[in-house]
Amino acid sequence: MAVQTVATTSESTVDLGPATALSCRECGHRVPLGPVFACEECFGPLEIAYDFSAYDTEELRRRIEAGPANIWRYAPLLPVPADVAGKPNINPGWTKLVKADNLARELGVTGGLYVKDDSGNPTHSFKDRVVAQALEAARAFGFTTLSCSSTGNLAGAVGAAAARAGFRSCVFIPHDLEQGKIVMAAVYGGELVGIEGNYDDVNRFCSELIGDPAGEGWGFVNVNLRPYYAEGSKTLAYEICEQLGWRLPDQIVVPIASGSQLTKIDKGLQELIKLGLVEDRPYKIFGAQAEGCSPVSTAFKAGHDVVRPQKPNTIAKSLAIGNPADGPYVLDIARRTGGAVEDVTDEQVVDAIKLLARTEGIFAETAGGVTVGVTRKLLEAGVLDPAKTTVVLNTGDGLKTLDAVAGTGLTATIRPTLDSFREAGLA
Amino acid sequence: MAVQTVATTSESTVDLGPATALSCRECGHRVPLGPVFACEECFGPLEIAYDFSAYDTEELRRRIEAGPANIWRYAPLLPVPADVAGKPNINPGWTKLVKADNLARELGVTGGLYVKDDSGNPTHSFKDRVVAQALEAARAFGFTTLSCSSTGNLAGAVGAAAARAGFRSCVFIPHDLEQGKIVMAAVYGGELVGIEGNYDDVNRFCSELIGDPAGEGWGFVNVNLRPYYAEGSKTLAYEICEQLGWRLPDQIVVPIASGSQLTKIDKGLQELIKLGLVEDRPYKIFGAQAEGCSPVSTAFKAGHDVVRPQKPNTIAKSLAIGNPADGPYVLDIARRTGGAVEDVTDEQVVDAIKLLARTEGIFAETAGGVTVGVTRKLLEAGVLDPAKTTVVLNTGDGLKTLDAVAGTGLTATIRPTLDSFREAGLA
Repeated sequence: MAVQTVATTSESTVDLGPATALSCRECGHRVPLGPVFACEECFGPLEIAYDFSAYDTEELRRRIEAGPANIWRYAPLLPVPADVAGKPNINPGWTKLVKADNLARELGVTGGLYVKDDSGNPTHSFKDRVVAQALEAARAFGFTTLSCSSTGNLAGAVGAAAARAGFRSCVFIPHDLEQGKIVMAAVYGGELVGIEGNYDDVNRFCSELIGDPAGEGWGFVNVNLRPYYAEGSKTLAYEICEQLGWRLPDQIVVPIASGSQLTKIDKGLQELIKLGLVEDRPYKIFGAQAEGCSPVSTAFKAGHDVVRPQKPNTIAKSLAIGNPADGPYVLDIARRTGGAVEDVTDEQVVDAIKLLARTEGIFAETAGGVTVGVTRKLLEAGVLDPAKTTVVLNTGDGLKTLDAVAGTGLTATIRPTLDSFREAGLA
Repeated sequence: MAVQTVATTSESTVDLGPATALSCRECGHRVPLGPVFACEECFGPLEIAYDFSAYDTEELRRRIEAGPANIWRYAPLLPVPADVAGKPNINPGWTKLVKADNLARELGVTGGLYVKDDSGNPTHSFKDRVVAQALEAARAFGFTTLSCSSTGNLAGAVGAAAARAGFRSCVFIPHDLEQGKIVMAAVYGGELVGIEGNYDDVNRFCSELIGDPAGEGWGFVNVNLRPYYAEGSKTLAYEICEQLGWRLPDQIVVPIASGSQLTKIDKGLQELIKLGLVEDRPYKIFGAQAEGCSPVSTAFKAGHDVVRPQKPNTIAKSLAIGNPADGPYVLDIARRTGGAVEDVTDEQVVDAIKLLARTEGIFAETAGGVTVGVTRKLLEAGVLDPAKTTVVLNTGDGLKTLDAVAGTGLTATIRPTLDSFREAGLA
């Protein structure tokens, strides 16, 4: 991995609130806040380090509760300036935590089942959370272009956030994506560049661009801004706990793509415990993958500490990362908390999308089918405890993956007469 | 119009909060709350009458502000029981009021321009607001099936809300709708019945079904529950004013389909004034139509009091009602408040969708293109005052009308090399 060398605003002037430095997850080496993502000592991933020492628990709780109905209510816990809520941004979050009583009945859950429904975000996926964070870092570092490689949700989130915040955007995608996905990403008016090649080629090109003078002033949300970007997922943990009445869930089922979201949810829960905002009790984190891209669940079941890459082949394209960077950390968290990692077939994904829609009126994208499907599978296997409070994440919107349920259709076709209506057995 | 005769729960036991009766908009005749929609004296439309006399202004304001982040914060002003927030429902509303500074700059608005973005609702259109109301009425009247005729947004909203609340749903659509729209409506698992005929045939059939024993126990959200359903649009007015800091906007631009939404927004604003929750100042309401279905704007410009029906031909299908029931009331409100009704071409609708996406990162459905397009046209004509606080409604989501912007695409296609990147002029 190349270490970012782009010249930016002097680090000493950077105000990212409680964030104090970047710290290597592997060796603990610290560097000043900047657009870097890999440790110069060991090439490990850099994470944000904070100073929360001045916070009084109850004052912090009141401050959060009095904050806006979006992720900026948690500004004191994020790498953003204190006045972030007043800056132009897409302002995602504070999505619904739906008490899924009908789904609970179907699955036999008695301890309380909730769906954290991130389809309520501005561009209808959890990516708005991480992009909103990356955008604030880009602003702090003086970047003027927001960029990413993407095959879907991320492209729309970057395009929309850049438009609102007055950044140029330049999103790279494989040139032969489906027309619908291209339209969704192109409508925000930024540069949308098709790369002649597959997603790996797109990624490789982006890494080259970061190291080149041509990429100067560019913030790649999921590359050189990744440490900031990734912190956006902590807000899922914060919201779930606050919406449960400042209480940890017993069990939480999280989709795994790169694994970053799951590790940051764990980080968020740990922070809430340390800050005294929730009672310190055991919780279990469960990871969910599609069988067609299940490197982490395969490693978990085999008892391995490392993740062997796979070539993805699943309808859950937003989770189709064959070589997940945070896979080993996911394994560690699942084992440490007493959770598990499981996978489901594409058929089970489709069934789960329909189950969630039929019981709760929530139309999830394929990633939501993965988490609901894995929840069902783990309950049947006795791995998830039905008597415990359980939260399942839906991270995207079914409107973006209509093909997955394309077989769904009319239950009857009739002539416009009461006789025809009765004949169809609908009365 | 037939008057509803279906037997239901005794009206004396119906608890719909502050709602006291149904009152004819034309002759003022009152009847008890029930699943009826037309006056038995004059066949005029029935509206909800309320008793708000016991409310203290500041206590009411505190109660609202302490309420949930959805439409039920306004339960004291709606035909719903006081404990509505605890019942299973889709819980729409409290969507973002986006301060659209970039759009304001493009359009030359200096007095503050806001987009009320109802794509943030659970099924991504304002229909969730009205369906949530109709559902509570259906529950109060003992109905067990929720129904409607629809060609789009309403079908999804009814399917989702019925699923969450444990109602059977039966939605009627023309049998030859696009497959994508069928999937969006079918995924919630209710009955989705294709009618061999056009949308008028579907509507005629539904009216027949309501008068037949086969329709017993059925709540048609936009027919026999229409008085309750329509009140859901008042919440747009409430939210806009509360989000402006309990202040009336000077100008508000509202799309017109049946015209019901515009009339109920006016009703909501009037209620806030009477209750003392906002200062009584003049406001102007502007109606927006697509040229291909512009019966109300045609009548407005011709100075007529009545609306001559049109045969719709526009890409703004969610507004394509050629014979809008509330057209005359819309004309009255536009004239009384000093507003106007205007229309834009389909090309202007598409341009406006792109303009809103490019400036604010909001991807609107065609109806949002209509309101933004009309806003631009009325500003250029000097009819809207750029120095006044202006609110524009986006009532739906661009993901549901992708065809409108299908021409949008890649800005460049390159090989995965820096040379190719530079050649494309992207550096």
